[in-house]
Amino acid sequence: MQNYTTAKESAHIMEGEPISVLCTPALVLDVDKVKINAQKMIDRYQKLGVQLRPHMKTHKTLECADIMTGGSRRCIVVSTLAEACFYADHGFDDILYAYSVPFDKVERCAALSERLDLFQVLLDHPDALELLRKRPLRDGGQWHVWMKLDCGNGRAGVLHSEPGALRLAQDISETEGVELTGVYVHCGNTYSCRGVEQIHAVAQETIDLTLQFMEKLKAVGISCKSSIGSTPSCSHPVKDMAQLSEVHPGNYVFYDVQQSTIGSCSLEDVAVRVLTRVISHCPHRNQLLIDCGWTGISLDGAGKLPTGYAVIEGHPNLKLVSMTQEHGRVEPSSGQLDYSRYPLGSLLTLIPYHSCAAAAMHSVYHVHSGGRLVGKWMPTRGW
Amino acid sequence: MQNYTTAKESAHIMEGEPISVLCTPALVLDVDKVKINAQKMIDRYQKLGVQLRPHMKTHKTLECADIMTGGSRRCIVVSTLAEACFYADHGFDDILYAYSVPFDKVERCAALSERLDLFQVLLDHPDALELLRKRPLRDGGQWHVWMKLDCGNGRAGVLHSEPGALRLAQDISETEGVELTGVYVHCGNTYSCRGVEQIHAVAQETIDLTLQFMEKLKAVGISCKSSIGSTPSCSHPVKDMAQLSEVHPGNYVFYDVQQSTIGSCSLEDVAVRVLTRVISHCPHRNQLLIDCGWTGISLDGAGKLPTGYAVIEGHPNLKLVSMTQEHGRVEPSSGQLDYSRYPLGSLLTLIPYHSCAAAAMHSVYHVHSGGRLVGKWMPTRGW
Repeated sequence: MQNYTTAKESAHIMEGEPISVLCTPALVLDVDKVKINAQKMIDRYQKLGVQLRPHMKTHKTLECADIMTGGSRRCIVVSTLAEACFYADHGFDDILYAYSVPFDKVERCAALSERLDLFQVLLDHPDALELLRKRPLRDGGQWHVWMKLDCGNGRAGVLHSEPGALRLAQDISETEGVELTGVYVHCGNTYSCRGVEQIHAVAQETIDLTLQFMEKLKAVGISCKSSIGSTPSCSHPVKDMAQLSEVHPGNYVFYDVQQSTIGSCSLEDVAVRVLTRVISHCPHRNQLLIDCGWTGISLDGAGKLPTGYAVIEGHPNLKLVSMTQEHGRVEPSSGQLDYSRYPLGSLLTLIPYHSCAAAAMHSVYHVHSGGRLVGKWMPTRGW
Repeated sequence: MQNYTTAKESAHIMEGEPISVLCTPALVLDVDKVKINAQKMIDRYQKLGVQLRPHMKTHKTLECADIMTGGSRRCIVVSTLAEACFYADHGFDDILYAYSVPFDKVERCAALSERLDLFQVLLDHPDALELLRKRPLRDGGQWHVWMKLDCGNGRAGVLHSEPGALRLAQDISETEGVELTGVYVHCGNTYSCRGVEQIHAVAQETIDLTLQFMEKLKAVGISCKSSIGSTPSCSHPVKDMAQLSEVHPGNYVFYDVQQSTIGSCSLEDVAVRVLTRVISHCPHRNQLLIDCGWTGISLDGAGKLPTGYAVIEGHPNLKLVSMTQEHGRVEPSSGQLDYSRYPLGSLLTLIPYHSCAAAAMHSVYHVHSGGRLVGKWMPTRGW
C-alpha cells in the first residue's frame, strides 16, 4: 500500500518525493513557475525604470517574499497589519501597509513606524489624518503617508475628481509630524477586462488620471511619489507606466484561472494547484465526489467559469459544479461519466479560479519542482 | 486613545474587558448562547431516548466539544481526520469520522482504530470496503464501519433505492475484520426548507426511508444502528426520530442566519458574530467600507439574503453588497447613507450567513459572556 502523509507529517518527507504522496486536499506550488513569474516582473520594471513594490497578500510567506524582492527584503506592500508585523519580525523593511489606517490599529502602526527604518501607511479621509496628528511619533519621527486615490476602481480612496482629494493631499503635506509620501491607486477595475487591449485601456485611463492629479499637486507646490497596481495592468505595462514612481502588483507570483481569463497570463503560467482525490461515485446522478470542498479552494469564482469553481487539469469535460465544507461535486459538461477513468482514490488537479482565496484556506503550501517536493511554506494569517 | 489588541496580544487581555477592545475583524462567540444551544439539544434527545452524537465540524475546538458532549468527551462526529486526531490527542474517544474512507488516509485511520477504544469510519462503495479488508487491524481488532445511505440529500452515500445498497451492507457485515456499526444518513436537503412544517416533511421522509432500509437489513438477519442528522431536522424532531439509534447535528451550537431563514432557530439564538469597523466613507457612491472582506466572513451566502452576505445587527437598512480580500462594501437598501451615524472607526456587528464558513476563516474565536471577554478558543484546521 502506498504511503501518504499529512501536512504535519510532511515536515519529515524526504525531498524528492512526488507530490502524489500528499494527503488531499493539498495546495501545491510550482517553485520554478513562482520564480519565473517573479523574475519577469522584476525585469519588466527594471527596464521601465519604475520601482517594483510587490504585494504580499496572495501568499503571505517569507520564502515567496524573498523571491519577489530578489532577496533584498525591502520595498513590499501588505494588506494586513499581521503581515506587516510578520515581515518586520523577519528582517524586512520599507513596508507599505496599503490599507486605510484602521482606527483600532493606530498604536500598532505607530510601534512599527518607530521600530522600522521605513513603515508607510495609507489614508483617504481627513479623520484618519487627524488620528495620526494626535499620535506624534517618538523622537520627532514622521508618519509616512500615502494618500489613496480612486481613479475609477470604486473601492477605497478619495475620488480623483473630488475637490476634497487635492485638499486632503495638501492637509497631509502640511500636517506636522506627517509626510505625504505618495499617491496610491489600485486599478482593480482591470479585473473586468478581457484581453490585453482592454487592460491597456483601463491602465492608460488610470495612469492619465493619476498623472493629472500629480500635476495638480505640483501646481500647489507638492511633489511626492505615485504608484498604481494590479496584476493585469502590471503584467502588460503601457508606456506611460514609466512616468510613475512605483507599481505594486501581487497576484502575479501565483497567477490563477481568473488572471488567464482576464489576459494577464496564460494558464501555463499559473503556479498553484489544489490536489484532490475522488472519494465517491454517484452514478444515479452522473457525478463523482472529490475531497475538496470550500475549505480546500474557497467559494470564489462562483458562476464565472464554464468548468465551475476551478479548472480540472487535463479533464476539460469535467466541471466542479458545487461544494460543501469537505465535498466537491464533479460532473461532465456533457455525456456520461466513465467511472473507470476515475477510480476511488484517483488524484485530480484543480487550478483555482482565485489563488489569493484558495491560498487563504491553507496553513501550509507544499512546494515542488517538476512534481517533486522540495519544501513547505507557511503563510501568516489574521489581522 | 483607546487601546486595542490583536488576536496574539489578546492572550493577555484581562478577563472582563468589553469585546470592543478587539482589533477587527474578529470572530466573537457568546458562550451563554453556545451553552444554551448545546444543552437544549442534549435535553431534547435525552427525552427522546436517542443518542446525540454532536458534529465538531462547525467549531473544531476542545472547549465547544466539551460543552456539546456535556463534558463526557465521548461520542462525537468529525468531518476531517485532522479533527479526529486533534480530539483523540486530547482524550476524546468514540469518534466517528463521518467521511467516505479516503484512500490516502487508510493508514492513519488504522492507527486511530488501533489506538482508541472506538474509532468509526464510513463508506459508500465496495472498493472502500476492499481497502479496509486489505488492512486488517492489529490484534484481531475490528474496523467499525457505518454505511452511508443517500435518502434524497444528493451528496455522498449509496442511493437508498439501489439494490447495491443492501448488497454493500451485507458485504460489510460479512467481511472478516470489519463490523457494520450502523447506517448513516445526512438529511442536508432540509437546508432548502422554509419553516418547521417543511423541515418536518423532509425529516419524516428521510426517517421513513432509513427505517425501511433497516427493515430490509433485518429481513436478511442484519441488525445495526441507524443515525440521521442535520441541524434543521434535529432542532425540530418528528416523533419517529425516537426510532433511530443516534442523531448527529453540528451547526446548532452556533446557528447562523441561514438556520434562522430555514426555521431551525431564531436570529436571537445565533451565538456567533464577526466584529468589523468602518474604515472609509464613499459618498460619491453612497457606500461605506468596512474592514471585513472574505477573509473575515467567507463568501458563503452570495445572493441569498436581502441584506447581502450577512445581517448587520441593529442596522436593518444596511446591506453588505460585496467583498474583496480585506474590504466589505456596505450601502443602504434604500435612501442616502447618514455618514454621521457611521464615523470612521465605528464598530459594526455582522451575523454570518453560514457560521461554519465564517469560523473556518479564523484561527481564534474570542469568547464573551454578556459582551465581556472570558477567553479564546483555538480551532484545529487542515486534513
